[in-house]
Amino acid sequence: MAAVKACNILITGANRGLGLETVKQLLENSCQKHIFATCRDPDGPKSEALRELARKHPRVITIIRLDVDDPCSIKESAKKVGSLLGNNGLNLLVNNAGIVARGTIHTSRVEDMKNTFNTNVIGPLLIIREYLPYLQTAAKASGTPGMSCNKAAVINISSVAGSMTRKPSNHIQSPVLPYSMSKAGFNMLTVLAAEELKADEILCMALHPGWVKTELGGEKAPLEPKESVEGMLRVIGSLTEKQHGGFLDYTGETIPW
Amino acid sequence: MAAVKACNILITGANRGLGLETVKQLLENSCQKHIFATCRDPDGPKSEALRELARKHPRVITIIRLDVDDPCSIKESAKKVGSLLGNNGLNLLVNNAGIVARGTIHTSRVEDMKNTFNTNVIGPLLIIREYLPYLQTAAKASGTPGMSCNKAAVINISSVAGSMTRKPSNHIQSPVLPYSMSKAGFNMLTVLAAEELKADEILCMALHPGWVKTELGGEKAPLEPKESVEGMLRVIGSLTEKQHGGFLDYTGETIPW
Ligand SMILES: NC(=O)c1ccc[n+]([C@@H]2O[C@H](COP(=O)([O-])OP(=O)(O)OC[C@H]3O[C@@H](n4cnc5c(N)ncnc54)[C@H](OP(=O)(O)O)[C@@H]3O)[C@@H](O)[C@H]2O)c1
Ligand SMILES: NC(=O)c1ccc[n+]([C@@H]2O[C@H](COP(=O)([O-])OP(=O)(O)OC[C@H]3O[C@@H](n4cnc5c(N)ncnc54)[C@H](OP(=O)(O)O)[C@@H]3O)[C@@H](O)[C@H]2O)c1
Repeated sequence: MAAVKACNILITGANRGLGLETVKQLLENSCQKHIFATCRDPDGPKSEALRELARKHPRVITIIRLDVDDPCSIKESAKKVGSLLGNNGLNLLVNNAGIVARGTIHTSRVEDMKNTFNTNVIGPLLIIREYLPYLQTAAKASGTPGMSCNKAAVINISSVAGSMTRKPSNHIQSPVLPYSMSKAGFNMLTVLAAEELKADEILCMALHPGWVKTELGGEKAPLEPKESVEGMLRVIGSLTEKQHGGFLDYTGETIPW
Repeated sequence: MAAVKACNILITGANRGLGLETVKQLLENSCQKHIFATCRDPDGPKSEALRELARKHPRVITIIRLDVDDPCSIKESAKKVGSLLGNNGLNLLVNNAGIVARGTIHTSRVEDMKNTFNTNVIGPLLIIREYLPYLQTAAKASGTPGMSCNKAAVINISSVAGSMTRKPSNHIQSPVLPYSMSKAGFNMLTVLAAEELKADEILCMALHPGWVKTELGGEKAPLEPKESVEGMLRVIGSLTEKQHGGFLDYTGETIPW
């Protein structure tokens, strides 16, 4: 089975939900690696589980403050990570942090539309911008041709709610217009970043985790974080340049835009 | 040839570019109609051509102040138009106003991303919200089944730059990342609004005008506004429920998301 063997990995929103579960499962894997587990409030109550994990695995996990909504915080995090990486590159960047906002044409709040766009689109763009030099270092250092997440990759955790083809069918039952518009913008960021990163052989794609029981996904979701993340890591581990600029779900199935 | 016979028409950004050309061509058509030509600065120098047109056709054109970036202005415009419509409905709403911003992952400015999202996505959503009652009145009054722009329709002037499938191929030569992300969000608004408007039989679709010589399109564009708008009006005039929630260009060709 394909596995994520990337050495240096950074994930946003790593303190709970799918982000935290991803850190946990990456630890189980025996390869030598380092995980930069970022979150916006490393000392707050919502990060207790992540701190606990980092205490148990001090050599593998470094907790880094990164607030996706704050360009300064993104820059500072990149400086910090850069100094810890030294001459090593970053192999895998997972843009996982995200927020949801519900609403229809009638009920969507302007503030919610602005906030979802900031957190789900502008933040990830700035993160790619700031971390690109480290991804380039990793890509250059790898010495192997082609693309893979063990060389250098950006994985954007998007959503089927951002699919123009798929979302309309359940919009009336589950209207999340601000979220859907932001994830569509995020998918555009993914395909255009893929164009820009191609020359450096840095893989970039969008991944839908399925509908998962987290604070964001809610109680009614059919999937446990464990199953979703197992699937996503399997997909991530198997990626090649064929999936560059693509949109897959946690089972590896392509989602139409 | 299909023609736009809609009685009451509202268009945003009607003072120049494609919006102004649309008003001009709608006038040539002999049908009895009323055009609410909206713009953000009706008394300013950029609206002189529209004022001139309105002076020549005072019974057909009413200029209305509508700043797409300002929710209050949208509400006030809707009140004004509502009072002028009386018991009549609005048959055709054209969300045409838009702005462009260039940029790559490296050069896109946060302000540009916020502004394009506000003008190209949030504004049109609020406009649909405020004008929906008048569109519903028109749909109810029509007495004919199915959908058409002569009954009740929302036409969103989008762009191929918002197509995940098409835009990547020329992104490196012509990077407009903030614009592309906003138009992708606008396309999501279109498909989800289409779901919400379906029950009222109000048609909603996205239309790409081609690459056109306007301030936004620039000097190098191959199309004149005349040809683009002739094509768009032909397409708009021929729409049925089959194109509801779809994405076409000015020649009637479907654009993939
Ligand atoms: N769960 C699902 O069904 C589902 C489906 C499709 C896609 N997704 C996507 O999967 C990703 C993870 O979602 P999840 O289900 O794990 O959600 P979650 O349990 O609500 O966790 C969201 C994570 O994002 C973080 N976050 C939010 N805003 C942030 C900011 N400004 N700066 C830094 N971190 C921020 C949160 O940190 P705090 O603790 O500080 O708030 C938290 O760690 C999201 O992108 C989501 O859109 C989820
Ligand atoms: N031209 C092309 O090649 C092309 C290609 C694809 C899509 N489009 C789309 O076609 C539409 C029209 O573009 P165009 O080429 O005619 O551009 P344009 O010549 O630059 O005209 C833009 C129009 O939008 C108005 N506008 C901008 N912001 C506004 C606001 N906040 N409130 C009210 N009005 C506002 C402008 O009014 P002011 O005079 O007050 O600025 C102007 O009337 C846009 O949605 C654009 O994205 C154009």
